[in-house]
Amino acid sequence: MAETQAIRDTAFDACSLMAMRYRQVRDATEFLCGPLANEDFGVQTMPDVSPAKWHIAHTTWFFETFLLNRFVAGYRLYRPEFDHLFNSYYVTHGEPFLRPHRGFLSRPTVAEVYAYRAAVDEAMLELIDRCDDQIRSRIQPLITLGLHHEQQHQELLLTDLKHAFSHNPLRPAYREDLPSVGHHDVGEAGWSEFDGGLYDIGADLDIDGFAYDNEQPRHRVWLEDFALADRPVSNADYLAFIDDGGYREPRWWLSEGWATVKAEGWQAPLYWERRDGEWWQFTLGGMRPVDPSAPVCHVSQFEADAYASWASRRLPTEAEWEVAAQAAAVRTKPLQDGANLREAGFLQPMATADDHGLRQLYGDVWEWTASSYTAYPGFRIPDGPVGEYNGKFMSGQMVLRGGSCVTPGDHIRTSYRNFFYPKDRWQFSGIRLAEDR
Amino acid sequence: MAETQAIRDTAFDACSLMAMRYRQVRDATEFLCGPLANEDFGVQTMPDVSPAKWHIAHTTWFFETFLLNRFVAGYRLYRPEFDHLFNSYYVTHGEPFLRPHRGFLSRPTVAEVYAYRAAVDEAMLELIDRCDDQIRSRIQPLITLGLHHEQQHQELLLTDLKHAFSHNPLRPAYREDLPSVGHHDVGEAGWSEFDGGLYDIGADLDIDGFAYDNEQPRHRVWLEDFALADRPVSNADYLAFIDDGGYREPRWWLSEGWATVKAEGWQAPLYWERRDGEWWQFTLGGMRPVDPSAPVCHVSQFEADAYASWASRRLPTEAEWEVAAQAAAVRTKPLQDGANLREAGFLQPMATADDHGLRQLYGDVWEWTASSYTAYPGFRIPDGPVGEYNGKFMSGQMVLRGGSCVTPGDHIRTSYRNFFYPKDRWQFSGIRLAEDR
Amino acid sequence: MAETQAIRDTAFDACSLMAMRYRQVRDATEFLCGPLANEDFGVQTMPDVSPAKWHIAHTTWFFETFLLNRFVAGYRLYRPEFDHLFNSYYVTHGEPFLRPHRGFLSRPTVAEVYAYRAAVDEAMLELIDRCDDQIRSRIQPLITLGLHHEQQHQELLLTDLKHAFSHNPLRPAYREDLPSVGHHDVGEAGWSEFDGGLYDIGADLDIDGFAYDNEQPRHRVWLEDFALADRPVSNADYLAFIDDGGYREPRWWLSEGWATVKAEGWQAPLYWERRDGEWWQFTLGGMRPVDPSAPVCHVSQFEADAYASWASRRLPTEAEWEVAAQAAAVRTKPLQDGANLREAGFLQPMATADDHGLRQLYGDVWEWTASSYTAYPGFRIPDGPVGEYNGKFMSGQMVLRGGSCVTPGDHIRTSYRNFFYPKDRWQFSGIRLAEDR
Amino acid sequence: MAETQAIRDTAFDACSLMAMRYRQVRDATEFLCGPLANEDFGVQTMPDVSPAKWHIAHTTWFFETFLLNRFVAGYRLYRPEFDHLFNSYYVTHGEPFLRPHRGFLSRPTVAEVYAYRAAVDEAMLELIDRCDDQIRSRIQPLITLGLHHEQQHQELLLTDLKHAFSHNPLRPAYREDLPSVGHHDVGEAGWSEFDGGLYDIGADLDIDGFAYDNEQPRHRVWLEDFALADRPVSNADYLAFIDDGGYREPRWWLSEGWATVKAEGWQAPLYWERRDGEWWQFTLGGMRPVDPSAPVCHVSQFEADAYASWASRRLPTEAEWEVAAQAAAVRTKPLQDGANLREAGFLQPMATADDHGLRQLYGDVWEWTASSYTAYPGFRIPDGPVGEYNGKFMSGQMVLRGGSCVTPGDHIRTSYRNFFYPKDRWQFSGIRLAEDR
Repeated sequence: MAETQAIRDTAFDACSLMAMRYRQVRDATEFLCGPLANEDFGVQTMPDVSPAKWHIAHTTWFFETFLLNRFVAGYRLYRPEFDHLFNSYYVTHGEPFLRPHRGFLSRPTVAEVYAYRAAVDEAMLELIDRCDDQIRSRIQPLITLGLHHEQQHQELLLTDLKHAFSHNPLRPAYREDLPSVGHHDVGEAGWSEFDGGLYDIGADLDIDGFAYDNEQPRHRVWLEDFALADRPVSNADYLAFIDDGGYREPRWWLSEGWATVKAEGWQAPLYWERRDGEWWQFTLGGMRPVDPSAPVCHVSQFEADAYASWASRRLPTEAEWEVAAQAAAVRTKPLQDGANLREAGFLQPMATADDHGLRQLYGDVWEWTASSYTAYPGFRIPDGPVGEYNGKFMSGQMVLRGGSCVTPGDHIRTSYRNFFYPKDRWQFSGIRLAEDR
Repeated sequence: MAETQAIRDTAFDACSLMAMRYRQVRDATEFLCGPLANEDFGVQTMPDVSPAKWHIAHTTWFFETFLLNRFVAGYRLYRPEFDHLFNSYYVTHGEPFLRPHRGFLSRPTVAEVYAYRAAVDEAMLELIDRCDDQIRSRIQPLITLGLHHEQQHQELLLTDLKHAFSHNPLRPAYREDLPSVGHHDVGEAGWSEFDGGLYDIGADLDIDGFAYDNEQPRHRVWLEDFALADRPVSNADYLAFIDDGGYREPRWWLSEGWATVKAEGWQAPLYWERRDGEWWQFTLGGMRPVDPSAPVCHVSQFEADAYASWASRRLPTEAEWEVAAQAAAVRTKPLQDGANLREAGFLQPMATADDHGLRQLYGDVWEWTASSYTAYPGFRIPDGPVGEYNGKFMSGQMVLRGGSCVTPGDHIRTSYRNFFYPKDRWQFSGIRLAEDR
Repeated sequence: MAETQAIRDTAFDACSLMAMRYRQVRDATEFLCGPLANEDFGVQTMPDVSPAKWHIAHTTWFFETFLLNRFVAGYRLYRPEFDHLFNSYYVTHGEPFLRPHRGFLSRPTVAEVYAYRAAVDEAMLELIDRCDDQIRSRIQPLITLGLHHEQQHQELLLTDLKHAFSHNPLRPAYREDLPSVGHHDVGEAGWSEFDGGLYDIGADLDIDGFAYDNEQPRHRVWLEDFALADRPVSNADYLAFIDDGGYREPRWWLSEGWATVKAEGWQAPLYWERRDGEWWQFTLGGMRPVDPSAPVCHVSQFEADAYASWASRRLPTEAEWEVAAQAAAVRTKPLQDGANLREAGFLQPMATADDHGLRQLYGDVWEWTASSYTAYPGFRIPDGPVGEYNGKFMSGQMVLRGGSCVTPGDHIRTSYRNFFYPKDRWQFSGIRLAEDR
Repeated sequence: MAETQAIRDTAFDACSLMAMRYRQVRDATEFLCGPLANEDFGVQTMPDVSPAKWHIAHTTWFFETFLLNRFVAGYRLYRPEFDHLFNSYYVTHGEPFLRPHRGFLSRPTVAEVYAYRAAVDEAMLELIDRCDDQIRSRIQPLITLGLHHEQQHQELLLTDLKHAFSHNPLRPAYREDLPSVGHHDVGEAGWSEFDGGLYDIGADLDIDGFAYDNEQPRHRVWLEDFALADRPVSNADYLAFIDDGGYREPRWWLSEGWATVKAEGWQAPLYWERRDGEWWQFTLGGMRPVDPSAPVCHVSQFEADAYASWASRRLPTEAEWEVAAQAAAVRTKPLQDGANLREAGFLQPMATADDHGLRQLYGDVWEWTASSYTAYPGFRIPDGPVGEYNGKFMSGQMVLRGGSCVTPGDHIRTSYRNFFYPKDRWQFSGIRLAEDR
């Protein structure tokens, strides 16, 4: 009898925790939308970018589609048309609405999307509240996935908004209250050395609790001796590359990189503008002078690779990066709770000291690696629509590691594999150098 | 003394009339925006389409730029950045903001644009109120031009909105209250015959009061005997073309037309959808069944020409159309005042009777002609930026005549020359046949 | 008896003449190919350009398809696959081979295409030889059409070859033996004045003998007083436009013209190259210095129109051009026989004197007009595949008049309407100014 | 004295061998061109494809540029313009001629290119003949590289020619004399199993003699247990995938793969055509029925990956492939001498028996792997222009292994890394499956 009660309590606790976590993440998304004007929710400046309204609807659709519609008996879709509008890319679930047309959807209005969120949240909290052990074991993984999914979209929401605002000649700020930071000399980068050998990388669910399918299974890799720069490349470092003619000299570039430089007319990182002989950059706080002591950001992998060639170094592989991060004795390093992203996308100058040798591994800029985004040995695509989450994108993209200033802190993991095309620059992406030893 | 007073009274009256007219047209624009949600103001679904917000800002920019900034001493621009954002294509005035990016401008917000309108209106009314004879002779033509310009944009606002809404799978209605109309058999089209000879066409400012530069000068043309269909081609007529394989048979089509049919996959007019074996069309009142008795609308000149070939007829030249319209004894036929567009874009079925033989010349659909849009003999491009209004577009476009159900009634003229590319379909464009006699 | 003999003689004569004419035109084509290396026959540098091999095969296909296959009992196609390969655009005859892929056809070889020509010529001459009155009345118009068609392709062959060679950094000459011509000052252009009134234009078959369908019917047009420059715009004239910033100043340009200037990076006519501060041009005789006294050539209609705006003049309409040419008392002016094109495409300096006031109307450069290429009043598309010859291209193109130095002299007519897109520059196209009087 | 003589003999022998090898490879290229008509040398059907004439000139340019011009005192370039025309992509050497324009070069003619070959060969043989030990140590590696480079182009020459001929509706055969092969049932594929562990892969120059930079350095990799199919996927296997709706079902495809299927309209491997319900394929011997017992060929990596997903298997990594090939006890397996490519591109049916378990690893089809083409640990880009040979292409491409029926037999190596984009199909590329154990 007492045991039954205990089990019930446990269930109750688990449910309460789940509900609390659910509310926390969902609230964080809406908190991020606080500074937006109604008009800001609808803009799409390129096919890769989604309007804020779409992000907040799509994350809701995820819970409705994969939780409510499957686990709530007799559930009726909030509005059946939304199933088409807010499906991102799950083709086994149905034909998604055209991605480049997301900016065409003036309806549903922002208010209608918030009402959709509210209705789904209410039903979700009821589902969580009612759940017994059996149902809980089935929904908990999906809810956890849905919340991590939502955290990814929190980052994208800010990333996409920055892109959208940057195309407006008024250069509006997302938040006017972001502080200007003082510059200081960050000095030369040092090097942390690592011995070669057989290492384990990838997520260990027993320790990490949660990880995406693409971080699994944990497996062995062989590495040769290597060293990693103890900090990311700074704006000052990168300016030396620019000033040395980096964007005019093909020999530093991959063939595709050079073709892109010429086709796009690249002369500096994305969001940099030359005004009266000075470099400025567009930030979520509006136009600001380029801070020489901050990590360079919004560079493509092509630029990262060219910079490394110019510096007679190379980019790390993702295995090297992960092994180094493990050695730094933290497997995850939550920067802050929930939505309070690090100053909402405003890059900090380099830390001057650090307790584990490698400065700013997490939470400043995503660091491009030399590794293509492919399957780990033994990787299996999960069954069902959730199987489309990661695996089908394993072509043509490169891995980034570490998380950025717009990544929710508790969404960052040592084993986390982010991935984008080598030409992509609108993410908060930077560079850390490596070399053979 | 009395004479001076009389002149003053005249001036006073002229100013009052100008102010009244100004208010009337400006109000009409805002009236048209009444049914819009805030979100609807920002959507741009193709480069040719402008967001509603852009239309209401650009028409305001026109008065600020060409009137206030030139005739109000010490005038300071409301916001100097707007001069770049809301310049459409006046390259001699400055570099316009990129047309395909108009949908990227979440700021200024709708409220900010309305505030801009209000400020410019106030300054304009003050300018009009203060004006003496001398200044009036200079500003009146520009104000008149600005108001006709605004009326053009009233039509475009609805035209573009229809395009925008049509790309939303929810197919939202601009106005839900547009009535469904009863169908009836419109019968065979009859023919009105006209003798060949030397005719005058083009605007006569003494009679017409106002006309665009491209309608001038009035000049002589020689025509051979011809006949014009006494009504536009109906949906029923056009369905016979479709059912006879019109879209599958190259021999009816101009070479460019056929290439477009294949490239675009055209199988029916724009906005037509086949549902369960029936043809529906998207209207400003939402999805409606195709009304066989209404004029066919949203066809390109390629389709108009192919239909005419299939029917063993041809399209009229613009001179034929104008001569016929003159013979119909009305040079202009205001359908209604100001903004009360004909049911706001809902096409009426064919009239069954008419007092001048030619039914529905004005205010149903723009009628494609066989004439390229080129300069009239003796045409002169006006000096200054206003010279960019019409002349520079005299390449590659075809003339349409008559006005449509979204043209403000008092903006329609017999000599009016509308022009679009032969592949364009998003205008309210239809077909009237002609033949040699 | 004598009468029968006379008729026979007439028939005999008519046949002999037809045969002679056939041989003459066919030989001319092959004469033009004389200077080509085998490799030169296959190059296609843009979709508008066809390889020389294709021209000589397609003109042969025309006779096989529209003559032999229809009028020779039991005729078997030389190679049935050729019917697909060498059909240009007659979609009612069958699906033509893809135009941009014409350069992919290494087979049939040049020798095989010549064998095809020889076989068709033999059969054609036999057909002509055997023909009685009845058959002659049916085939003669088609043979005449086929020969004019072949003459058009003689011009295109050289025009396309020039384009092909210009893309080779070796800048090979079609003929090395083309003379360099001495420069001289051509002086200011004079003006020939014409009274307005009702004029007849278009081909009169009783006088002209042959004309394309698009030159018919002869019909009345009303013209106002006008004047035509007595010579084409010279390279010296055009250099003044370039030096005055003509290619950098949008106000001279049609909107589409200016967009093209920017998109294509135009800074001078096609084939002009700046070398050590001097302008050179690629010619069929290789690279030559720009001759200031020669007519400017290889300009688009956009450039012609911009030049005219800059010069405060305009382009003539095609009716004005034709009326002026009629007044010059020659309806046609054969420059020379058959294939001996005027120095094979090498432009002469301006004539210093002329017997009819208008210098160089014919045979120097095609002169862009202000007229869109549309149907004459009463134009009828002929029945059958031949109906695709001209009518279906009446969209988006502009008329050129007068013939160029690569037009066979006996292919030039006063009423001849050539037509190309306003952006096209690879034809031998130039400018003659007009103005209102 | 005797020792000096011995050294001289060695030098003589080395020189003689080098000369013999040089002649052998150069002759092989010309032998492959034997069946070509002059016209076949110039065709370029897509930017990836080069004309045969370009291949034979470019391989010559390689020797002239990197050997003659650097090691022959006072050497004068055969024709300086060729340095621009026949440079492929060595941007540090100069601006290469535009790749997509290679088909525009009717000059130099085929005969002129052969004369260029002859002149360079004469100078090369003289250089080799005169060389002493010192010079030999510097030129031998470059000559060896040049010959391997030429062998690559031998393969490309046939590969590109097949593409060119396939675009000609006449479907010409490269060689009519290629035998039709008898079909037979190849049975189910078996599996060869391999234990996981630490392995060495990459070229060992002491054993292999020569390898490209990208195969080096030899290095350790850790593999888990795996199995490899003992034969490539056959046409019969692949037909089962097609018949099961493989090209209509997105769930088997990578996201980019599916987008490509839809954009390109793929329904079968490249060169397959459906005629009267039967599958045919275009071969270098003309159109032939698809042989069910031959390896499937001309599939993209997207198709290879989709096939593997459908078959519940995966593609091997390049390390797995190489380890398996090493186990098969041959590090290289020359199929035949020089140019006598395996029936010049005609695929053989599957072998029915094999002495090492794995059938047809070499010389049938290039086998797509799951590995992106990236740098091996410790890879260094060589100095000078030769450094552009491989490294700058390490982005976006996938590795293929094993060599195909158009690879010169003595050009095949176990460590050889071929690389193409995952969408490429015009190479002789096929599939071998793998699975975890």
